Amino acid sequence: MSEKNIDLKALFLGPKSENKEIFENNLEMLFEDHSQWRKNYHPGDDTIIKEKDKEKESFKSTKDKMEEVLIQLSSKLRAGSVPWHSPRFLGHMNSETLVPATLGYFAAMLYNGNNVAYESSPATSEMEEEVGADFCELMSYKKGESWGHICADGSIANLEGLWYARNIASLPFAIREVSPALVEGKTEWELLNMSVDEILDLTDKIPQKLDELKSKSARAGASRIVKLGKWLVPQTKHYSWLKAADIIGLGLDNVVAVEIDENYRMSMDSLRKTIDELTEQKIPILGVVGVVGSTEEGAVDNIHKIIEVKKEYSSKGINFYFHVDAAYGGYARSIFLDEEYNFIPQDELHDKYLEYGVFQDAETQWPSTDVYEAFKAMSQADTITIDPHKMGYIPYSAGGIVIRDNRMREFISYFATYVFEKKMDIPALLGAFILEGSKAGATAASVWTAHRVLPLNISGYGKLIGASIEGSFNLFTNLKDHETYIIGDKVVVVHPLGRPDFNMVDFAFNYEGNTDLAVMNELNHKFYEEASYVQNGLYTNDFITSHTDFTIEDYGHSPLNFVKNCGPDEKEWLKEKKVTILRACVLSPFMNNKNTFEEYMEKMHNAVTTKLERILK
Amino acid sequence: MSEKNIDLKALFLGPKSENKEIFENNLEMLFEDHSQWRKNYHPGDDTIIKEKDKEKESFKSTKDKMEEVLIQLSSKLRAGSVPWHSPRFLGHMNSETLVPATLGYFAAMLYNGNNVAYESSPATSEMEEEVGADFCELMSYKKGESWGHICADGSIANLEGLWYARNIASLPFAIREVSPALVEGKTEWELLNMSVDEILDLTDKIPQKLDELKSKSARAGASRIVKLGKWLVPQTKHYSWLKAADIIGLGLDNVVAVEIDENYRMSMDSLRKTIDELTEQKIPILGVVGVVGSTEEGAVDNIHKIIEVKKEYSSKGINFYFHVDAAYGGYARSIFLDEEYNFIPQDELHDKYLEYGVFQDAETQWPSTDVYEAFKAMSQADTITIDPHKMGYIPYSAGGIVIRDNRMREFISYFATYVFEKKMDIPALLGAFILEGSKAGATAASVWTAHRVLPLNISGYGKLIGASIEGSFNLFTNLKDHETYIIGDKVVVVHPLGRPDFNMVDFAFNYEGNTDLAVMNELNHKFYEEASYVQNGLYTNDFITSHTDFTIEDYGHSPLNFVKNCGPDEKEWLKEKKVTILRACVLSPFMNNKNTFEEYMEKMHNAVTTKLERILK
Repeated sequence: MSEKNIDLKALFLGPKSENKEIFENNLEMLFEDHSQWRKNYHPGDDTIIKEKDKEKESFKSTKDKMEEVLIQLSSKLRAGSVPWHSPRFLGHMNSETLVPATLGYFAAMLYNGNNVAYESSPATSEMEEEVGADFCELMSYKKGESWGHICADGSIANLEGLWYARNIASLPFAIREVSPALVEGKTEWELLNMSVDEILDLTDKIPQKLDELKSKSARAGASRIVKLGKWLVPQTKHYSWLKAADIIGLGLDNVVAVEIDENYRMSMDSLRKTIDELTEQKIPILGVVGVVGSTEEGAVDNIHKIIEVKKEYSSKGINFYFHVDAAYGGYARSIFLDEEYNFIPQDELHDKYLEYGVFQDAETQWPSTDVYEAFKAMSQADTITIDPHKMGYIPYSAGGIVIRDNRMREFISYFATYVFEKKMDIPALLGAFILEGSKAGATAASVWTAHRVLPLNISGYGKLIGASIEGSFNLFTNLKDHETYIIGDKVVVVHPLGRPDFNMVDFAFNYEGNTDLAVMNELNHKFYEEASYVQNGLYTNDFITSHTDFTIEDYGHSPLNFVKNCGPDEKEWLKEKKVTILRACVLSPFMNNKNTFEEYMEKMHNAVTTKLERILK
Repeated sequence: MSEKNIDLKALFLGPKSENKEIFENNLEMLFEDHSQWRKNYHPGDDTIIKEKDKEKESFKSTKDKMEEVLIQLSSKLRAGSVPWHSPRFLGHMNSETLVPATLGYFAAMLYNGNNVAYESSPATSEMEEEVGADFCELMSYKKGESWGHICADGSIANLEGLWYARNIASLPFAIREVSPALVEGKTEWELLNMSVDEILDLTDKIPQKLDELKSKSARAGASRIVKLGKWLVPQTKHYSWLKAADIIGLGLDNVVAVEIDENYRMSMDSLRKTIDELTEQKIPILGVVGVVGSTEEGAVDNIHKIIEVKKEYSSKGINFYFHVDAAYGGYARSIFLDEEYNFIPQDELHDKYLEYGVFQDAETQWPSTDVYEAFKAMSQADTITIDPHKMGYIPYSAGGIVIRDNRMREFISYFATYVFEKKMDIPALLGAFILEGSKAGATAASVWTAHRVLPLNISGYGKLIGASIEGSFNLFTNLKDHETYIIGDKVVVVHPLGRPDFNMVDFAFNYEGNTDLAVMNELNHKFYEEASYVQNGLYTNDFITSHTDFTIEDYGHSPLNFVKNCGPDEKEWLKEKKVTILRACVLSPFMNNKNTFEEYMEKMHNAVTTKLERILK
């Protein structure tokens, strides 16, 4: 059945709680079902809490106390939460979440399964396996050979990716100890430069020796980690990569930041240069990270070009692990998949978008060829981070990781007697192959429910993410074309950073004619303070955004052109060493509608004027 | 205000959904509040989803689809979930959860705060800080000097504990590089044997050099980890310790399992012997883990005796980090705290229990002096793992960690520009000091709400956990005194493992007169299959339990006496090398009531008879 008519408006509670009744009816149904399930589990068992218990003073006062605390909770939440649901919020990667996801979480929480073990959660463990398979399909990984699961968040997924890379890279030396014949004649350098596939193929030859192999791998201790080499990440890296390198024992000294180009994407020249310099010193490359949706710009690295570099060096005997950090951008791959999960040829995309109503304006031009090719090439990564709680519109906390070759799992596995027997014939065995232990079955139910309503292709999530991207293009165009703000005797101009790769619009204000970068930075930091929780009550704030700094230390000189376009020159840049940026993710599913968008832009520009007035008064 | 009358029956939905109305009323209130909050954020903003949108075919069909998926979800949950709520479930550490916790989660999920950053979650970030302070108070850590937070689960908390230990142990060498005068004259061995306090005091002297210090610590790379020494855990360790040692780069080769005694507690003789042997070889002890509530027996290590050993060796210049893994038992410390959070003297406990109705039967004798002293001494640990989703009766996933000295945080910290500024004046800064990144504010709200209703002292959680402990003593006594099961021509006897330290009762069946351990193990494994998801539909199963194996490899000969009591002799034990055990945590808050307990024991014994008949037919 083709589904061209999924209506996003039916899937959110709505900025004004417009779908309250739908939400409530289903909430009630799910709770009623659970309630009756309890009653009907051994219907002959008597109640334990009796009516006469409920009449006791102690019961009443305890109930009253609980209700008072709940009222207090509700009050605190209303006073101290961010109105993600409103298009007036344009900051972090947040919007209201999908109703099916929230209700799915609620329903499953009542049953409280623990997906660490099948016997603690038959239903939700199977859902997590299905979600893992969904992720694999989304990445065009081979069915049956790949695997995925939900984890606490993207930081944990990245750490797990690095854990895989580290343990697998150490296997050639373990093989040399356990079955030396398999790697006979290989030099140390060759052992450090085997590909993931080669290594796994070798382990296939000694199935009876896997435990011994593991005991001689990086899991044995730091001395087996020391020589594994460098972990290359683009300068736009999420800070979790530093933390992961610390935790995993590789160390910050072995993280190399590859320079980015002026589009905030990893520079291929710099990547090649880095690899050349390292290999010349006989330092191996443990792995490379490509970012799909950088945290502060939404930039999409040229994954296809990294794959080219990978192949080019492989032919010279230099191999490395390749992880894609698509915590932010991962779900957007659904916009490229038809209903049979084939990657749509680029020249058919526009028609498909029209067919499925992905964009409301036929003129919306997205993606660029680079972005298209980058998403396409993701299927060649060894592991991919993907966060349902970002572009999956799932409530926190839901991260995820997908692995291309499920043989890899063996090398991070642990089996606990009391919950999993190794060869057990069960439909889902999660706990043995994950970094965490106990985990909410409710998270799996939440993601599962959302995926069943919105398939991970152009008909479902593709449409939702299309709405978000189109909203961000509306914002980008609007800022680009926006007239100046005249505040007293000052004229303030808004400068968007550049055409978004995805759905994030960065921008900065400057006084017309101002060339002093410190002054410009101060203006933007003050604006952030006005447009955040800092100065004003959240609930009365007219417009909320987020901010960041691009520093020379982290970004090199990639921001220089932008700074120049705003006014300050190179000397200023070298003096201040940073530019303060305002950062708006457009996640609202409703900002693709031109009328709605314009209505809110008017509010936003008014709010900006008020804030600037307050700053300049 | 003293609260002696908290009534546990008002705080659970109930095995038969007896408190359905209370749950529903509050659920409705919380949702209504949220709904109105949306409407009243800028009440002048118009609706986006219009009535005419709702009349569209696409809207209706999308809504129908969502509702079909939700119905399917509900059906799957009912068919494939474990009836934790029923006292017929006596297996893993599960029961129904606290109503305030479930509702707290639900309410906060609607607002979907992300506690990684204060600006994404002012309300719930503050709640998490308060929960952390609750944990500190529970452990009698010094107010203002200690800190705690929620994490994904106990495995992550243990990993974080090991991360602290590793990074701090590496600091003396970093200090030698950065400020050599501070450690002048110290030998390598002395640097490896400094106490946590000594190390932190030194770092206090160079506040301007902390970043440099960190860059030379274990976070820099594996070469700084290699020499740090061994991590000592009791044989009863949770498998997450192996995984943590792997991930953190210390390695399984550096995990030493200290032998346990016949009460399944770490043997002090063995601990001393292990330390002596290692230090003789000049191998340092990185740290020791004490377990409060072992996963498979509920055993409580003699924390006070470990502290004695620690002091004794400290006086000889041998120091080590001390982590308490109280993932399971941590909340039980509330049973020892009066309403002012003072640790109640042992000779006053019995009267206090009577005063607060902790036990329904004045004859219930708990704790033993060892267990009392062990809980008391927890306040001297460097870090403690505590899982709200176990004895906190909180829905998954909620783990936690507490640190004695908040100066430690600096050495695992990372600051991301876009979410946290280092010296920012905000009430809560979590994200910089945790292993994870994004995390559900809802989890914090859930734990916060539960703690506000049930304080972490004798009046609140103490009473709840008292009910659980008393239930387990009821079960232990019942099994101990139970007559044989006569099944055809076979007579089957039930053997409980030993007086519980906490609320877990292990037991095994054997045929009367049977001395063949393989036969006995087979009987118990078959029984487990009958009493789990394996053979029968969960929903029709009369009695559900869990199981484990005690092997010589993991447990040494500690189980030998138990095996002998069951029938088989030492020769059999040495031949089979393991004994299969059935494992029942008694978490139900209602099994302290003698009538309810007896009613359910009759059902259980009937179910056991039926299962044994099926096995033996």
